[in-house]
Amino acid sequence: MLVVMSHTATQDDVNGVCAAIKAMGYTPAPMPGAQRTAVGLVGNDGRVDDSLIAELPGVAKIIHVSNPYKQVSREWRPESTIVTIAPGVSFGGNDVPVVAGPCSVESEEQILESARAVKAAGGVALRGGAFKPRSSPYSFQGLGKQGLELLALAKRETGLAIVTEAMDDEGANLVAEVADCIQIGARNMQNYSLLKTVGRLGKPVLLKRGMAATIQDLLLSAEYVLSEGNPNVILCERGLRSFDTTSRNLFDLTAVPVVHQLSHLPIVADPSHGTGRRDKVIPMARAAVACGADGLLIEMHPHPDRALSDGAQSLTVDQFGDLMHQLRRIASAVDRAIAGAPATRRA
Amino acid sequence: MLVVMSHTATQDDVNGVCAAIKAMGYTPAPMPGAQRTAVGLVGNDGRVDDSLIAELPGVAKIIHVSNPYKQVSREWRPESTIVTIAPGVSFGGNDVPVVAGPCSVESEEQILESARAVKAAGGVALRGGAFKPRSSPYSFQGLGKQGLELLALAKRETGLAIVTEAMDDEGANLVAEVADCIQIGARNMQNYSLLKTVGRLGKPVLLKRGMAATIQDLLLSAEYVLSEGNPNVILCERGLRSFDTTSRNLFDLTAVPVVHQLSHLPIVADPSHGTGRRDKVIPMARAAVACGADGLLIEMHPHPDRALSDGAQSLTVDQFGDLMHQLRRIASAVDRAIAGAPATRRA
Amino acid sequence: MLVVMSHTATQDDVNGVCAAIKAMGYTPAPMPGAQRTAVGLVGNDGRVDDSLIAELPGVAKIIHVSNPYKQVSREWRPESTIVTIAPGVSFGGNDVPVVAGPCSVESEEQILESARAVKAAGGVALRGGAFKPRSSPYSFQGLGKQGLELLALAKRETGLAIVTEAMDDEGANLVAEVADCIQIGARNMQNYSLLKTVGRLGKPVLLKRGMAATIQDLLLSAEYVLSEGNPNVILCERGLRSFDTTSRNLFDLTAVPVVHQLSHLPIVADPSHGTGRRDKVIPMARAAVACGADGLLIEMHPHPDRALSDGAQSLTVDQFGDLMHQLRRIASAVDRAIAGAPATRRA
Amino acid sequence: MLVVMSHTATQDDVNGVCAAIKAMGYTPAPMPGAQRTAVGLVGNDGRVDDSLIAELPGVAKIIHVSNPYKQVSREWRPESTIVTIAPGVSFGGNDVPVVAGPCSVESEEQILESARAVKAAGGVALRGGAFKPRSSPYSFQGLGKQGLELLALAKRETGLAIVTEAMDDEGANLVAEVADCIQIGARNMQNYSLLKTVGRLGKPVLLKRGMAATIQDLLLSAEYVLSEGNPNVILCERGLRSFDTTSRNLFDLTAVPVVHQLSHLPIVADPSHGTGRRDKVIPMARAAVACGADGLLIEMHPHPDRALSDGAQSLTVDQFGDLMHQLRRIASAVDRAIAGAPATRRA
Repeated sequence: MLVVMSHTATQDDVNGVCAAIKAMGYTPAPMPGAQRTAVGLVGNDGRVDDSLIAELPGVAKIIHVSNPYKQVSREWRPESTIVTIAPGVSFGGNDVPVVAGPCSVESEEQILESARAVKAAGGVALRGGAFKPRSSPYSFQGLGKQGLELLALAKRETGLAIVTEAMDDEGANLVAEVADCIQIGARNMQNYSLLKTVGRLGKPVLLKRGMAATIQDLLLSAEYVLSEGNPNVILCERGLRSFDTTSRNLFDLTAVPVVHQLSHLPIVADPSHGTGRRDKVIPMARAAVACGADGLLIEMHPHPDRALSDGAQSLTVDQFGDLMHQLRRIASAVDRAIAGAPATRRA
Repeated sequence: MLVVMSHTATQDDVNGVCAAIKAMGYTPAPMPGAQRTAVGLVGNDGRVDDSLIAELPGVAKIIHVSNPYKQVSREWRPESTIVTIAPGVSFGGNDVPVVAGPCSVESEEQILESARAVKAAGGVALRGGAFKPRSSPYSFQGLGKQGLELLALAKRETGLAIVTEAMDDEGANLVAEVADCIQIGARNMQNYSLLKTVGRLGKPVLLKRGMAATIQDLLLSAEYVLSEGNPNVILCERGLRSFDTTSRNLFDLTAVPVVHQLSHLPIVADPSHGTGRRDKVIPMARAAVACGADGLLIEMHPHPDRALSDGAQSLTVDQFGDLMHQLRRIASAVDRAIAGAPATRRA
Repeated sequence: MLVVMSHTATQDDVNGVCAAIKAMGYTPAPMPGAQRTAVGLVGNDGRVDDSLIAELPGVAKIIHVSNPYKQVSREWRPESTIVTIAPGVSFGGNDVPVVAGPCSVESEEQILESARAVKAAGGVALRGGAFKPRSSPYSFQGLGKQGLELLALAKRETGLAIVTEAMDDEGANLVAEVADCIQIGARNMQNYSLLKTVGRLGKPVLLKRGMAATIQDLLLSAEYVLSEGNPNVILCERGLRSFDTTSRNLFDLTAVPVVHQLSHLPIVADPSHGTGRRDKVIPMARAAVACGADGLLIEMHPHPDRALSDGAQSLTVDQFGDLMHQLRRIASAVDRAIAGAPATRRA
Repeated sequence: MLVVMSHTATQDDVNGVCAAIKAMGYTPAPMPGAQRTAVGLVGNDGRVDDSLIAELPGVAKIIHVSNPYKQVSREWRPESTIVTIAPGVSFGGNDVPVVAGPCSVESEEQILESARAVKAAGGVALRGGAFKPRSSPYSFQGLGKQGLELLALAKRETGLAIVTEAMDDEGANLVAEVADCIQIGARNMQNYSLLKTVGRLGKPVLLKRGMAATIQDLLLSAEYVLSEGNPNVILCERGLRSFDTTSRNLFDLTAVPVVHQLSHLPIVADPSHGTGRRDKVIPMARAAVACGADGLLIEMHPHPDRALSDGAQSLTVDQFGDLMHQLRRIASAVDRAIAGAPATRRA
């Protein structure tokens, strides 16, 4: 931590800061400069509260040198973490798994048809919401427990791994019984009670970045899960709030190489929410693999025009097949491979 | 709802849209224009899913005419709602209550000293977190149940109403036993499970706007509480995520007159989080009252330099007294009054 | 400047950074910490280019301690600058001048009628664009030179000072002949050629904050004007780009106390562009005065429903009279006064 | 244009809107709905000013159906425009040209060394600023005319096309004598005087998106150039202002497919400014090609550690060679090709 003194600070002010740092049990390191003095705090163990010093006389600002996150950082653990959610479905290695399926589980027929299409095109995991966080209380809120049962049925039939969202403690326990990976949605990224719960449950967690979350916020939220003893966290970029309405969100793909530098955790991309428009999903999915994403979340619906939610951003089965074909070419161009047996291309 | 057809849409495309609207049980109203055709949907009951139409051939975009929220809207209820959280402590009328206190409850001495100072300066309610949502799992997380007991003690001694945050279902039940108003923090604004819980608890709710929430998002979250049968919601502007680091957040005071136009619910302002800097709190608190805020949340700490959280934005007891004095003058200039007996000004 | 070394940096890396700092002619100050080492650069004269060091081995990040602006800073000049644009029209002192008038100069009748109304209500300067920056090349672009002549006429008739925008060098020279203060619009805040031109012209400059400009960006743009020898710069907050469409822009009033802390220059507020809606202008103008703005820019039109631009955010003559009355009360509540002879209130 | 009436609007209010629309010379189309009435305006020629109607009694809001831009839109011209800036250097076709070079022209040796490296790696055009827009007046502002002469020299020696920025009218005329394409920087995207000047000069224009510009703003700025008779505009995504400091800007690659849908103009990407960090440039350049960018702008410097500006985001010569190799593979995976003769890969 660095305490920057004002241009007009007196030597007494500097001494006051040094004394306060000592009183907190750390060592002050004054650094006189041409324009102003700065005082370093040596021995920061990550528990220093800057507000104790920020308001002392003569202090202009406080600068933090260390990151507040620990276990998630690459400095803590240099080698990349590989999160395996089911046999053969791993995130963070050379293979790039594709998780696909409808926004919501709507019916047995719909989820089975979806699962078969995902499987046929080469996807390795099925997504689909049983509990849906909707902005309006009057929108379809998901089938709940029945939706989870339908996901379990789809898993039995196709062997696909299951990724589905939990919105609260009760739901997390239910989801953990069925899913291979518990998704925490963007709106709950800073729901710390829920993060602790899924940390304790031990199941792999897919943590979506909040709508205005910095990468540091995202990593700190992951730290909540790791600090409960659960190391299996997959991060997910899904687009930020934007002033431009031509896409639903502002898809921040640079988050992929940024996370790879700062953390050992894998990061996947969700171009369906990231763009919100079906015809933008395919190019941006390609871009995600090109910049190094460790997996993809894709919304696909057997009949998007009849979807109960997010129809406009769901691919058709045919489009999904095309996408998988394109992704294999891109993955190969960056010396990776799309996970799963290569499906035969549609004629 | 208005379906805007592309420049190049054919008459068949327009007919297709009309047919789809009829199939959904509504009436289509084609509107040919000089450059393109639009098709109105007549009879929208708020349950139309635009994604069913957005992807039909020739459709350029869908425009929503009605607001998705209902019970919170001023169209639904023209007269302003007055939320009374304790005898004499009402939000939404002519009086402007000031809620003040430390960021966190830290000790009996600290909270009692704070409460007495709030009372002495003319505040009518005490704030202070027992459960603290912190970005880092390693930061002080609040005293929990013990913090609630200390708040109850402060209430007994001073008669101040209590406003404190709940972060999950279990906490909400505990908070409801002690507090006069349950605060939902910015990070939980879209934690719909929690919103439903506090909706059912029936206690007044202070709902903070999320860091990148539109006013519509905020109103929809309030709608979750009202739709559970709890009409007593106080909205709160507390600053948005910004690209400028000179203040902690971007304090969007225009939200106050915007909410007053769109909704009958009261809206208060939190300049402490809104600016994040002690010396900015006072001018922006004045501004909040000047533009019509129905109350204020102010962080004040008897010893900000020893605060366990948010010290840099907490006023001292003396500053708070000054602020109250200034606010009375501003309130009077807009024909309102700061709630509570006018305290004698410090000499 | 502070060079933060990576957790994994070697002593050789630290030595390399020290050597590079010496080679640039400055003194390195290594600061070993518990988790990592930082190296201070002593003697920074504001011309250090961090990119020379940022990519050396072991460097994690560079932190700047000093502000890049100089002449505009309060550290450079502690006393507030008062900018006088015409006799009795000063910004930065105790009086708060109100500049009002239509978005665009449209006709002799319109601008004279506007000027008389501004004068009658107690405004001291007339605004009105002769050169209009419009997003679309097909929108009304202003009357140009003829508009300037009409402003000169209005000045002769009413004695009001004139504030009007220049968009390029040629226009700046024309505007300087007629106006008392040259406005640089938000879109041109970083048009450095234009800033240098108005710096050399010597006339007072009203510099509007860009749509996504930090306060530091704004101050650096002002520095361009001051560095050409023109100290008379008035800053202006007029709203930032936002994701929320309920107002036209996000009016960042906290900029007022922030600028007052960092700079000696006066700052005024433009609630008309800041909110973009007529009924929000009045409460937010009150808020601006309450938080310390050194002046106001208000759009007023004798017939807003016939305005060629920005009609929706222009006050009527009656509304403007009401506003002035309200502002006088608010100014008084913060121990300031609205500049100009108090107009008799309309019955 | 659609005029949405308030829930509480009377039939008189609706009649008033209809009358106003007729008075403007258009046809009203009332559209009564279950909750409220909307009135369409038929015959909109793009010149309707909504503010004339927005404030009539009973009007809730105005919705625009048509886009304000014309000549740049794909509806106006369905086939993609190919902009050829020099023989063999075309943007918008199947080939993807790479424009590379230093941020600033610094010396004869530096620019020649850069040009040779660009040429050797397979780039087809050289970038490098002679006129530099810098946030601070004290930063290096470019070599000016001398810089242009050095670019001309580099062109004669290597045959590379030249892309360089103009900041004002005088500079634009100078740049036009030397450059094959005039760059308009992000800060000048809405400098309409400059846009008109380069529109009249007739040279191809590379127009960078402003820091908080919507795609519509960008297209409207391009419309300024086209409306002066110059159809040769290349758009450029270079990152938006963000709240997250882990990258310099927020690189909005979705702009690429969005522009491809809305406009016939080519769009290139600048991952150097888009990310601001050397190690992020390579993955994001790959992503740009993967999502369909029609060209790339890359900062490369023979000695980034000695660069006078933007050293931290400049690739080394070796990194640029690697990048070109990677880009060829990605381009091939999307059935395109990097323009220029394939360079032999470094051993």
